[in-house]
Amino acid sequence: MLTPPVQTVAWAPSGALRIVDQRRLPAELVMRDLSTLDEVAEAIRTLAVRGAPAIGVAAAMGLAASAAAALAADSDGVRGGARAVAPGDAAAMRQFLEAGAAVLRGTRPTAVNLMWALDRMLAALQRASGDAAALVQAMRDEAERIRLDDVAMCAALGRHGRTLLKDGMRVLTHCNAGALATAGMGTALAPLYVARAEGLNVEVFADETRPLLQGARLTAWELSRAGIPVTLIADAMAGSLMAAGKIDLVLVGADRIAANGDAANKIGTYSLAVLAKHHKIPFIVVAPSSTVDREIATGEQIPIEERSAEEITQVAGTRVAAEGVRVFNPAFDVTPAALISHIVTEQGVLCAPYHFDRATLPLPPA
Amino acid sequence: MLTPPVQTVAWAPSGALRIVDQRRLPAELVMRDLSTLDEVAEAIRTLAVRGAPAIGVAAAMGLAASAAAALAADSDGVRGGARAVAPGDAAAMRQFLEAGAAVLRGTRPTAVNLMWALDRMLAALQRASGDAAALVQAMRDEAERIRLDDVAMCAALGRHGRTLLKDGMRVLTHCNAGALATAGMGTALAPLYVARAEGLNVEVFADETRPLLQGARLTAWELSRAGIPVTLIADAMAGSLMAAGKIDLVLVGADRIAANGDAANKIGTYSLAVLAKHHKIPFIVVAPSSTVDREIATGEQIPIEERSAEEITQVAGTRVAAEGVRVFNPAFDVTPAALISHIVTEQGVLCAPYHFDRATLPLPPA
Repeated sequence: MLTPPVQTVAWAPSGALRIVDQRRLPAELVMRDLSTLDEVAEAIRTLAVRGAPAIGVAAAMGLAASAAAALAADSDGVRGGARAVAPGDAAAMRQFLEAGAAVLRGTRPTAVNLMWALDRMLAALQRASGDAAALVQAMRDEAERIRLDDVAMCAALGRHGRTLLKDGMRVLTHCNAGALATAGMGTALAPLYVARAEGLNVEVFADETRPLLQGARLTAWELSRAGIPVTLIADAMAGSLMAAGKIDLVLVGADRIAANGDAANKIGTYSLAVLAKHHKIPFIVVAPSSTVDREIATGEQIPIEERSAEEITQVAGTRVAAEGVRVFNPAFDVTPAALISHIVTEQGVLCAPYHFDRATLPLPPA
Repeated sequence: MLTPPVQTVAWAPSGALRIVDQRRLPAELVMRDLSTLDEVAEAIRTLAVRGAPAIGVAAAMGLAASAAAALAADSDGVRGGARAVAPGDAAAMRQFLEAGAAVLRGTRPTAVNLMWALDRMLAALQRASGDAAALVQAMRDEAERIRLDDVAMCAALGRHGRTLLKDGMRVLTHCNAGALATAGMGTALAPLYVARAEGLNVEVFADETRPLLQGARLTAWELSRAGIPVTLIADAMAGSLMAAGKIDLVLVGADRIAANGDAANKIGTYSLAVLAKHHKIPFIVVAPSSTVDREIATGEQIPIEERSAEEITQVAGTRVAAEGVRVFNPAFDVTPAALISHIVTEQGVLCAPYHFDRATLPLPPA
């Protein structure tokens, strides 16, 4: 299997959760080993680890790692602030894990993958039996399955999305839906990594993605690291690039997809879809089918989170706007299915009209 | 006549050129009095004064002010670094002014208005006679005429553009084409100031305008100061605002307009025009007829300046992108006439198809 340009979440030799601290990118690549629940919760809360799939995997692995540390704390004495659980005390370990899952759930309350991964961990805990050490082992096994599922999901997205790419193509992307957002090689960027591994020349234009600049900070970094030529642009430049004939395809991820294919993604995605349609450029959404919310019929029902004004009035810690100016800062927008040429899931390349229902989607796990 | 929210260029009581130092906005409103040629050149070069019409007026006034200072230096002794010219030495004063104009011309080599204003000053110098003091007076008179012409131009743009506005309208604008870009009340923002003075309720959404954030720093500031409700957004949010029915009209300026109406303006303007068309929202360009370059048939012939990568890789002095990442940073884009609902000049509201030729435009001055 293809190696991603960076392993965003992994096991440390100690059994701790090892993450890339994304707050330090692109200036430096810093790994951090997290073994207590507080450390894991803090890393998710402060966006040291971000990207919906990566958050889910990190929470699962972090919960297992913190349980292992609690066990070790009992034999070695209290260390690193870890709460101690005696190896024989299965009830205390179950209590520790349930409380830990509740803490992690509160770190990013709107992250669907986080809830989903923690539900999987608690379901595995219910199935498990034996002493505290056996429960820890069951948690490590389930977290590893969640990690491997994510890696396999990325690989499948890459394989299917790759069929839409041709040699020499110039691809525009927005935000970061790459290896840094998953345990594997990403969602929207996965097809590019597969194409590159197969010897295709592909070139990427990355929107910087205001306000949080994930394109500048993360996407440009990971594509460069993978040896894929990448050119950074301000978001407002995408239209003139298309008009100049410099873009062949748009690849973006999704945060939530309605049953009719309307897709919510990072703010700015909708504008790109309209521009792509005007210039007759294919606009492709790449996302695991777990992104589809079958309870939601159309994009109009997707709630859009509004974030703080400071993300717009300040840039890199410096105030740029006048005091007292009003700000509108929605984190996401919704692209109607009619503007989406294809939705690529781990099941294949879907064409419009999209009808996501129980028949076309795998059952939710657990 | 309507008072603009800020007087960007004015005469100081001393006869110096008084400018608003736009590098300090929006944090503080700092005026600077410039009396030597070096001070004027430095202010234009470092964008303390910016905006095509404002640069032209500032250069003309600054040239006159520096000549007056040279004259005063002779009688008072050398002060403030001003070169001295004896009141009776007309030849030395002509030489001083011609050399000064050449220096100012080099400060922003692509600014058409700068060349135009300095040409007007040199033509007035040729017509003038008498001693050095008389030449200084002729320069002050011509600079004041240039300033008043700009103020009148802004007022006419405002009066004509106002006819496109209705009570309650929500207007999107990009970059800064306001009072801070002219000696008067601006170009694209002038209709809003006129509407406001007539008691209409208008509301503005201002694109922050990456990379240099003129929307966040300048447009939001001057509209707030004028009491016009303004909401700041990241550039990538414009499309979703339009989709939500929150924008009734787009008003932008122009840096150069081809004979067929294709208009070059700040990067990102073209994307807005495509988005406006998709959402059936009128897209209006407001610019003096001196912006039309009759030598250029279509927008394809308008050269687009590419600016430094640092404007994208750094924000407010902080590096945000990975080292070595390629950057594409065009300062302008071209909006085809077909996407422009109206072009408002000081002569009125023009409708497509646009045909700018000698018959429909005033002769260039001097």
